[in-house]
Formats: sequence, C-alpha cells, structure tokens
Amino acid sequence: MTTIVDVEVHDVRFPTAASGDGSDAINRGDYSATYVELTTDGGPTGTGFTFTNGRGNEITCAAVRALAHHVRGRTVAEIAAEPVAFWRSLTADVQLRWLGPEKGVIHMATGALVNAVWDLRAKLAGKPMWRFLAEAPTDELVATVDFHHITDALTPDEAAAILDKGRDGLTDRLAALERDGFPSYTTSVGWLGYPDEQVRALTRDAYAQGWRAMKMKVGGRIEDDLRRARIIRAEIGPDALLMMDANQVWDVDEAIAAMGVLAEVDPYWIEEPTHADDVLGHARIARAVTELTGGRCRVATGEVAANKVIFKQLLQAEAIGVMQVDACRVGGVDEVLAELLLAAKFGVPVCPHAGGVGLCEYVQHLAIFDYLRVGTSLDGRMVEYVDHLHEHFTDPVRTRGGRYLLPTAPGYSATMRPESIAEFRFPEGPAWR
Amino acid sequence: MTTIVDVEVHDVRFPTAASGDGSDAINRGDYSATYVELTTDGGPTGTGFTFTNGRGNEITCAAVRALAHHVRGRTVAEIAAEPVAFWRSLTADVQLRWLGPEKGVIHMATGALVNAVWDLRAKLAGKPMWRFLAEAPTDELVATVDFHHITDALTPDEAAAILDKGRDGLTDRLAALERDGFPSYTTSVGWLGYPDEQVRALTRDAYAQGWRAMKMKVGGRIEDDLRRARIIRAEIGPDALLMMDANQVWDVDEAIAAMGVLAEVDPYWIEEPTHADDVLGHARIARAVTELTGGRCRVATGEVAANKVIFKQLLQAEAIGVMQVDACRVGGVDEVLAELLLAAKFGVPVCPHAGGVGLCEYVQHLAIFDYLRVGTSLDGRMVEYVDHLHEHFTDPVRTRGGRYLLPTAPGYSATMRPESIAEFRFPEGPAWR
Repeated sequence: MTTIVDVEVHDVRFPTAASGDGSDAINRGDYSATYVELTTDGGPTGTGFTFTNGRGNEITCAAVRALAHHVRGRTVAEIAAEPVAFWRSLTADVQLRWLGPEKGVIHMATGALVNAVWDLRAKLAGKPMWRFLAEAPTDELVATVDFHHITDALTPDEAAAILDKGRDGLTDRLAALERDGFPSYTTSVGWLGYPDEQVRALTRDAYAQGWRAMKMKVGGRIEDDLRRARIIRAEIGPDALLMMDANQVWDVDEAIAAMGVLAEVDPYWIEEPTHADDVLGHARIARAVTELTGGRCRVATGEVAANKVIFKQLLQAEAIGVMQVDACRVGGVDEVLAELLLAAKFGVPVCPHAGGVGLCEYVQHLAIFDYLRVGTSLDGRMVEYVDHLHEHFTDPVRTRGGRYLLPTAPGYSATMRPESIAEFRFPEGPAWR
Repeated sequence: MTTIVDVEVHDVRFPTAASGDGSDAINRGDYSATYVELTTDGGPTGTGFTFTNGRGNEITCAAVRALAHHVRGRTVAEIAAEPVAFWRSLTADVQLRWLGPEKGVIHMATGALVNAVWDLRAKLAGKPMWRFLAEAPTDELVATVDFHHITDALTPDEAAAILDKGRDGLTDRLAALERDGFPSYTTSVGWLGYPDEQVRALTRDAYAQGWRAMKMKVGGRIEDDLRRARIIRAEIGPDALLMMDANQVWDVDEAIAAMGVLAEVDPYWIEEPTHADDVLGHARIARAVTELTGGRCRVATGEVAANKVIFKQLLQAEAIGVMQVDACRVGGVDEVLAELLLAAKFGVPVCPHAGGVGLCEYVQHLAIFDYLRVGTSLDGRMVEYVDHLHEHFTDPVRTRGGRYLLPTAPGYSATMRPESIAEFRFPEGPAWR
C-alpha cells in the first residue's frame, strides 16, 4: 500500500539555444524539463516531467504546484482503482479548468504529474512501462481512458475490441522487437540553424550509421528549403525517406504552394504545415498534397496538438496520415492511450514526437506498446530520434542501426541523474550562474 | 513620447465560490483577476487584466512576469507604429510559444498585457476605448491585425473593405446608442447552484427591471434542466428570449439528445454544448439543432475558444450562429479585432462573453465598436450582463432597462479601485486572511 507523501518539482534547463540545436522556423530553445518527483512512504520515487523550450519553465512548475494537492497523500492503489476519477481531479478541477481546458501550461503540468504516477506504478510492478501497459488486462486499460468528449469517435466497447484483438500475435511481435528493435528516424541532420555543409556531413554520417529515414526543417525561404532538401535527397538516394517539418510557419495556402515546390524531392510527409489548432486547414492541405504527389506524401502533426479532442477531429476530418502524439503535452499516459486507440480506430499510424530533452526516453515505451497491443503493425511506424541530452537520464535510450532497443529497467525511463539536476537547475545551478 | 517604465502584476481574488454565484456544470469559481499596471514616465497608468476562476491565478501572474520584458521600456509610439511586431514579440517568443501556442495560460497573460497597452493608448487619447477604435483610420486598424494563419478566411483587403463600409451611417448608429444604450441579456437568474424558487424570484425581478433575454445554465440532470427552463419560460412568456449554457459538459451525441428535450421551451441558443476545442462537434450539433427547432435555436460559443484560429474554423464549418468573443482569453484587443472582422465576413453576430470580474466592463467597448464600425447591426447582438463585482472598478458599467449605457471615461474601463486591490490581494489581503 504505497502512499505518495510529497510532490517535488524542479526547474531544469539545458543551454541548447546558443548552439542552434533544435532551431526551426519558430523555435530556438533551451531544452528544459518541469521535473516532478513523487516521493513515497518507502517505495520507489515516481518521476515524470513535461518538456518546455526554456523561458517559461517556471510557469509550468507553478502549474504543477497548483495541481499537486490532487496527488499528495493519495495511495497508488486508489489511483489505479479509479484512474478516470484521478485524471478528472486534475483536468476538471472546478477552478483550474478555466486555464485550459486541457491545453497549454495547465495540461502540460498534468502530463508531468500523470506520467510520474505511471512511472511509479511501473516501478512498483518491476516492469518497463511498455511491458506494464502491454500486459495489462483490457478492462483495466479501457478503464484508464476518459471517454468524455470523444464518444462520437470511439466508444469503450470499440476500445476494448481493439485491445482484445491486440493480444493476438503479441508474442511474435515482441520477439521481433527483441531481435530487431523499433524503427526510428533522425531529425539531427537538418535544423534550420545548420549551414549546408553541416547538413551534408550529418546526412552522410547518419546514412552510414544505418538511418534510412531523415527529417529536415523547412519554412525558411522556399529556395533555401529546396536547396537543403536536394542536398539530403542526393546523399540518401531515392529509396530512403525524407520528411519535412514546417513547425506551423505557413498559412494554409502558403503550405499548399510550398509543397508544390518541395514535391520535387519526394517528401514522405510534411509535418506541421500550419497552425497546430487548424484542423480544417490541415484537412485542406492534406487533400492538396495528396493530389500534388499522387498520394506519396502525407500530412503529419501532433507535437503541439493540445489534447484528444484535437486529435479526434484531425482523424475525423482525414487531415492527417501520420499521428505524432507527444508524451507530455497531452495529459500523460491516460490521454495518450485514448489517442493511440483513436488512431487505431481510424487506421492512421502513430509516429510519436520526440527530441527535446527526455522525449525519446518517454515515447519509445508508447510506440512499443502501440505496436504490441494497439496498432499491431510496423507499417509506417517510426519513432523520432534526436541525439541530444540522453546522458542526463539514468536509463537512456539505446539505438542500433537506426532502431531503438527495448528498454528493460522498471519504469518510464523518465528519471534524471541527480548530478544533472543539480548542475542544470534554473537559475541556481552552476550551468546557469 | 510616453514610455512604459514598469509592469506590475497583482493577484486579486474575490471569494465568490461559497455563494454559488457563477456555478455551472463545470465551474465553481472564486472570480479573480491577474491585474496588470503599466506605469509610465509621467503619463497615465495603463491597466488590464485577465480573468481566472480562482486557484491558478498565480500561474497567469507568473506568465505575465515571463512576458513583461517585451513590454517594459517600450514607448507607446513604437508599439502603435508596429502593432503586429509588438503582438508577435508576445505570441511568437521563440521559447514561450511552446507553452501555447496562443492558448491557455500564456495567451491569457498576453491578453492582460495587450489590453493594458490599449487602455493606456485610449487614456492618452482621452477617449473611451470604443470611441478610440471606432474613430481610428481603416489602415491603422488593419495594421493592428496579425493575419498569420487566417488569410484563408480573411485577407487584409477584405478587412479594409469591412472597416471602410463601417464608416457609412456611423453617426446615426452612435446617436441611436447614445439614446437607447446597447442591448444586453442577463445570466444572473439561473446558475446551477440556485434552488428553483430563487430562479423564479430572480427571473421575475429581472423581467420587471426590463430584461427580455435571460440565460440559464444547463448540463445537470436533464429533468432538472427542463424543470428550471419551464419555470423561466413561464415567467418571461413566449416572446422574451431564453438562452441555455451547458459549459461544455455534454458529448456531441448527448448534446443533440438533450436539445431534443429542451427544444420544448424554445431556446434561442445553446451555448458551449460540448468541448470548446471541438469545431467539428459543434458543427454537427448546429446541424442537428437547426433541424430539431426549424432554425429557431442556434449554437453559440467562444468564451473558452482559445484563439482566432479556432474562431476561424467555427465560422468556416458553420458551427456557430452566435460568436461569443472573450476580451482577455484571446490575446487582447488586437486579436478580438481579427475575430470581429472574421464574424462580419461570415455574417455571424457577435455577443461577447461577460460576467466574471470586469468582463462586462471590457466587452461593452468591443460590442459598441463592433456595432459602430464592423458588424453595423443590432440584429441578434446582445452583451452578456452579470450583476457581480462592478463596485471594484473606477468606471463600472451602467445599465438602464436591460441596456448598457455608453462609457464615457477615457480608457478601457479596466481600472480597479486601489482599496479593492488592497482588500482582495491573494493571499495577503484582509479578505483572505
């Protein structure tokens, strides 16, 4: 009977902005974590975080503190017994809900807390998160999902059918993953802040390491985007996948025009072609891009999709061909479960968003669980991989030949090394003095 | 040449939760303001705020502090000369944007700051906000709007045409308002927290005061909703308008089913029938409600619509027949301008959201400006009115016979009395000790 006795939150920031790592059409960040520790009465400590881009990490920390009273003093058993009640205590607080609802700062804080609870549960079970979820009974998983506001797209019965069906062949799929790892792609070759020769060298290097799917940033001047895309395509040949990410910089008609130019290099997807909230805009772009490329290119989005209601609509409107859930922008594992099930219902592959700090560590579990129990296919599935900041985690991701190896340590791989927290705490850590 | 020398923020909260004022299907708030003062080098102080529901007001205060460096040290002249550049300094900060984008806490903080700048500008011009906007040249107003992500629905040329046309007959419209005031409706009769007899007495009282449009909360048990609705309809007769507000509590199909029952009392609109982000859901409900009522009832939403991209889609999808902009959830006057222009383009009347604390004071200016220069009609236009907390403002709203009288003091009516700030500061004010 483990009780969560306290909720601690740390403002941890890494000074990445200066290097151009992570620069794109609209972001230039100091990758940061609103890092939560749930201390218990003798059990392991549950850890979770939400990712931010630097300035403002103190705001998400304040939001965690505002929500912490819903977590402090709770037992793990009572949370596990009534997961939707717990979830709603955070997302439907009669005063705090106004600050969202279920979006932005307050929802990102929810994600940090909810993920920390799941980390704790998986640690108590002695299993890595992917296994903890994949081995859970269908009714427990269904009971975890708050279907409020999504029943017009997915009912509990439909969710149960998907999860039951996901038991078939699970052992074979697990054996395949243990043998080969999980497919991924790299975003480290084409940040906007990198000059052409660096892009070429990084692409060549990534190809040599085994990567056959690479993502570049677009949304600068169209002639620059095309030149950089040609460099990458020349290096990787016609068969490897080239993805593009505009980080919301275009208006709807600009996106369609730009893709008319960039279609030349045979992009596999265009990610965030316009504002993250623009479901109808994404749908229009998807129709245009399908026509422009004969269906070879698809629209991807999700890293800034606020919640399951936005994802539901992206699927209903046929606006996306790839769904990129984030592990902590939405309110943590409970909501990601809803999103994976929605994607399965609509037949859209999930390629989780990663990068930043700790996001690769998180989402590998989600993608593996999705393959084992929900989506049950590797067709079109890849986890983003960015080679930054893994050294700060006690259980960092491991890759081989462009594939993630299965995590084995109990928990959600979300635990930071104490030395890293001490060094990079903002503003008092030595790195910031 | 006025310079903003400092940005002060106060956490001001009114203990309204205990009384049931403002209670609805999902909120039970201590009406609060993240209150901003822009002190200047000798000129007036610009004031603005964002409204919150109590707990978490410290988070929006933290967000104002995180954005304040974009305002501190700026001159009013340079902001007025490049309003979109100023707006983007707040909304497209390369690190803070991740916390939205343009939604929730970070955007509400933007609203408080942007509104305070407008209050300062109007005070310097010696005009109430509505007049300051209504008398502005078309090109200045168009230059205030950031058209990024909305050009597929509204271009600068279209906006200019609307505003130019709005000059025709402006003098006559102003004379009508000076004579009659601006139509409004009252929400004070039917909060969920009130028992039936209180609802009946308040309705009778409001009718006697001249109100011919009243809004009730729904979203409890359907038989309770219907019983309360019948009480109000019986009191106000068949000709007065009865509006209903579900505060997002229903799923899409539940909303359609509930309106099948509530149609009996001839509702004029159903407000927030489902989740605020669900554009496609609102569109389905709108089609169903139109069919159920032969077009007598329409869907209204907006108080929790995050930004202009959501409003754009609600209009594109024909999801709303009434657009309820909020003055401070979206990023202040600049964005409201975009939303008023979008509504005019699509021919949908705007009935701003008010209530809370200070929202009536804000939105009267927006509605009057809309009538004078943008929408140019009173058909279907009403400002929400709630009789709470006006006594804390130096220039409170004045009503007569269910109509708002034109504000005359310079500024945006957003200035709180110093005694009120001192009394209700959280947590140190005497009201909270």
